[in-house]
Amino acid sequence: MAITAGKPIICNAAISWEAGQPLVIEKVEVAPPQAMEVRVRIKYTSLCHTDLYFWEAKGQTPLFPRIFGHEASGIVESVGEGVTELKEGDHVLPVFTGECKECTHCKSEESNMCDLLRINTDRSVMLSDGKSRFTARGIPIHHFLGTSTFSQYTVVHVGCLAKLDPSAPLENVCVLSCGISTGLGATLNVAKPKKGSSVAIFGLGAVGLGAAEGARIAGASRIIGVDLNPSRFEEARKFGVNEFLNPKDHDKPIQEVIAEITNGGVDRSVECTGNVNAMISAFECVHDGWGVAVLVGVPNKDAVFMTKPINVLNERTLKGTFFGNYKPRTDLPSVVDMYMRKELEVEKFITHRFGFSDINKAFDLMVKGEGLRCVINMDE
Amino acid sequence: MAITAGKPIICNAAISWEAGQPLVIEKVEVAPPQAMEVRVRIKYTSLCHTDLYFWEAKGQTPLFPRIFGHEASGIVESVGEGVTELKEGDHVLPVFTGECKECTHCKSEESNMCDLLRINTDRSVMLSDGKSRFTARGIPIHHFLGTSTFSQYTVVHVGCLAKLDPSAPLENVCVLSCGISTGLGATLNVAKPKKGSSVAIFGLGAVGLGAAEGARIAGASRIIGVDLNPSRFEEARKFGVNEFLNPKDHDKPIQEVIAEITNGGVDRSVECTGNVNAMISAFECVHDGWGVAVLVGVPNKDAVFMTKPINVLNERTLKGTFFGNYKPRTDLPSVVDMYMRKELEVEKFITHRFGFSDINKAFDLMVKGEGLRCVINMDE
Repeated sequence: MAITAGKPIICNAAISWEAGQPLVIEKVEVAPPQAMEVRVRIKYTSLCHTDLYFWEAKGQTPLFPRIFGHEASGIVESVGEGVTELKEGDHVLPVFTGECKECTHCKSEESNMCDLLRINTDRSVMLSDGKSRFTARGIPIHHFLGTSTFSQYTVVHVGCLAKLDPSAPLENVCVLSCGISTGLGATLNVAKPKKGSSVAIFGLGAVGLGAAEGARIAGASRIIGVDLNPSRFEEARKFGVNEFLNPKDHDKPIQEVIAEITNGGVDRSVECTGNVNAMISAFECVHDGWGVAVLVGVPNKDAVFMTKPINVLNERTLKGTFFGNYKPRTDLPSVVDMYMRKELEVEKFITHRFGFSDINKAFDLMVKGEGLRCVINMDE
Repeated sequence: MAITAGKPIICNAAISWEAGQPLVIEKVEVAPPQAMEVRVRIKYTSLCHTDLYFWEAKGQTPLFPRIFGHEASGIVESVGEGVTELKEGDHVLPVFTGECKECTHCKSEESNMCDLLRINTDRSVMLSDGKSRFTARGIPIHHFLGTSTFSQYTVVHVGCLAKLDPSAPLENVCVLSCGISTGLGATLNVAKPKKGSSVAIFGLGAVGLGAAEGARIAGASRIIGVDLNPSRFEEARKFGVNEFLNPKDHDKPIQEVIAEITNGGVDRSVECTGNVNAMISAFECVHDGWGVAVLVGVPNKDAVFMTKPINVLNERTLKGTFFGNYKPRTDLPSVVDMYMRKELEVEKFITHRFGFSDINKAFDLMVKGEGLRCVINMDE
């Protein structure tokens, strides 16, 4: 047992004291894990737009001071009562949503929307006692998505930890705990393109390129990237995207353009922007008879998806997915395996690497929309 | 070869000379079948609401004089050049849509929306030469849906004829060539409820009860019928419907009522009314994580399907179907087999039987909304 087990740990964390203000790296006290909780030493964390949205807190509930971060890899330091699946030294991915293995969703083969541990952006404390495990400057610090990986140690519910093959390089697999898997699973688990088929990907950020990577792995022959920013097209080629469409270049709806160049529509589409008009285009651009459109991006609350019923009746399918339909504990190890077998090329997604002390630079990059994933080494 | 082969046949047909006016039974001359066509002696026809809509011609393109009818059974009298799959004496179901077996849709396992023979309500002549095969009072009479089964003989493209087991009773299986199969297939082929699951059926007319019959056959344990007309509930029990909801009895959207009584939503829903609000309810009433809603009913052209994207993103699926995803030639024989094995109970759908001379009475029943299917004996 770790000599720290059962005791508070003092370590560095990047605390967000105020919306939109630089994070402050300072000492935080991390309490021991309670029942069904695990304390994890975070080795690497990457940044995702969800961190940015809640840090900016434009429209989201502002909960500060808070420790953000939810894409990460780490090593179990100690476990709380009742935790039997993980032990000290296990390599893990913390995940922003969970799998209790007991609820109707976890027991369904089709759903990964766990009733107990499903993502809750407004919850900022641990489930068991409604309290924070972080203290800094004498006050409790809010958790974020049950993970708070911008801390060298964090406490996570066991249902939100995927156990890793210990040979998987932690500095790379950290990016599989959110966006990349979301896009990848949207294609592989939900859209399920056949070999030789055509797939349109809306939005060529990290999630969209995860979806493209899924289409490449599935053997799709035409992978059409749709984005308003043409600077993304070159990067996207590495992910199998072999045709590009910028809606700004056309004076008719992009779904009509896609229908023209594909003899009626693509076989599959995956929407990764969260813009409701892109959602509508993604649905209407799939071929009648067999086309399947998958929605991934989350729009603002007032958005309304609208289409003529005939577009549905003509045998199109519209599906939504959350975290690529992966059950975190059950399925993520298989994603890591895909990477270890070199089917999934994770390194392509990592465009920047920083030490923990430079975390605010990583935020700057993301604000500017530069790069795909920035991995932060928590020990530097 | 029939002595009539290659020659015109004079027989009785019920001609609609004017929108909304009684049909007139009179002599019609039926030309011999041309290449890839088949002349069929219609034995039984039933009436479907699509006949009524185009006979009323409120909003539809008025094409008169016309011979309506598209749900029927008959016997091949003679075949045109190139027809090898059917011969004189074969029992057949004429179908309002077709299967050429050559186009991308026919070659797709998923689609039944044949490029060549897909339903076309505005086409009123034969494909090969753009002419009618019917003449009455010296003028050509418009075809309807490529079938025109309100005639003792009709000419149909071979791609719109399903070959029947000759032991199948023609007086019953006629109803399988449109509405019943549409509802049945929507459930069995598209919604695919699991044994013990819950299914909501919107609209308890013949199509909706076909969908309910599919749910019963699939072993669904809760089959919830939703209809504004409570007089349909008693009949629906015969089709496995075991719970009823009338939206008029509730002061909140029916999808919310369904979510309450099913702990979050039904596993599957099938929409058979064509009302766009019912479509929205049918989609929103399925359970997040795994719910599948299937749209069958055809709305008016101006209708718009609207829902919040989160309803999709929470892992619901929306699918449309046309003719229950059955490929007419390939799949309809298996539906007839289900009936012959007594899994599918066809007789329940037939509430009235008339002789051909009383066809206007059958129209009256349909206008009043009485009964499910009226079968007309073409020889009486």
